[in-house]
Amino acid sequence: VTARRVDATRNRERILQAARSAFSDPGADVSMAEVARRAGVGSATLYRNFRDRRELLTALYVDEIDQLCAAADLDAGPPGPALLAWLRRFSAYFAGKGVVAAELLQHRAGDDPVFTGGYTRIVAAGRPLLLAAQEAGAVRTDLTLEQVLDLVAAVTRIPGDAAYREPILAAALDALRPPAG
Amino acid sequence: VTARRVDATRNRERILQAARSAFSDPGADVSMAEVARRAGVGSATLYRNFRDRRELLTALYVDEIDQLCAAADLDAGPPGPALLAWLRRFSAYFAGKGVVAAELLQHRAGDDPVFTGGYTRIVAAGRPLLLAAQEAGAVRTDLTLEQVLDLVAAVTRIPGDAAYREPILAAALDALRPPAG
Repeated sequence: VTARRVDATRNRERILQAARSAFSDPGADVSMAEVARRAGVGSATLYRNFRDRRELLTALYVDEIDQLCAAADLDAGPPGPALLAWLRRFSAYFAGKGVVAAELLQHRAGDDPVFTGGYTRIVAAGRPLLLAAQEAGAVRTDLTLEQVLDLVAAVTRIPGDAAYREPILAAALDALRPPAG
Repeated sequence: VTARRVDATRNRERILQAARSAFSDPGADVSMAEVARRAGVGSATLYRNFRDRRELLTALYVDEIDQLCAAADLDAGPPGPALLAWLRRFSAYFAGKGVVAAELLQHRAGDDPVFTGGYTRIVAAGRPLLLAAQEAGAVRTDLTLEQVLDLVAAVTRIPGDAAYREPILAAALDALRPPAG
């Protein structure tokens, strides 16, 4: 039984990993069949783990939020650079995860508890990092974390390729320094 | 004939002024009849000047672009503050002018020459101001005007009220200072 459970967990992880990599291919129209193919599992195994595409997307989403929240690590070093690194991760999360992020953005103002709960969790995980960076004098104190995340998300949504957007994001992160004078 | 022409110009200006004020009322659903009422002209006069709502919107739009371009004044003072003031005006133009700005945003990537031409004119008017501010050392040199305008527009589109958005815009404008060190 234990071996079977290990296998089951391994399958689930393989499917999630395959789905994650499939969704990060630009322009990929990812079907359940394609996910099964990439994961090297049969369609029965896929559907035993995830009833439908929406359930798979939700699991991917929750998994990404878990990782993003875990990355908001107060013990990782000086809080100013740690906050900036975390905000870059937040931005990459939006920029790279086409389909899943699009679902998040669509649902952010909606009432699906999975999605509204995800934003709440991100804010709860990031706030101590912002407060520590503000207390250390590394970050301006006139913005809340919601405002900082809205700034980063807005820049991340600017159309154009990464080379065009990167200097804008760098400037936006520079904007978090305490104002001179 | 001259007096008639003066009257005609005056009517056109009155209609544009009334339409501008009507569109800046939050949530107003502005009809042609409402514009005529506010301008104090008959419906025949209105339609003699503007064949339909789209023609009126286009005229409003061109007029706003004219004013925005004229405000990019190199002789108005030190170029750094002048650029920031102009960018605030650019932001207010987006934020306040609901319907007309929505048309601009919808059409910006489109092929209507009026709208694509408007963006081109804004860039052409603002670029000397950015270059002068960069030469004066007041503004970072790693962003083009297109990138600066995209940053300001992205912040301006953040949902929420003006009190929520204002500190984000202030931070984004601070971001244009040359990076320290």
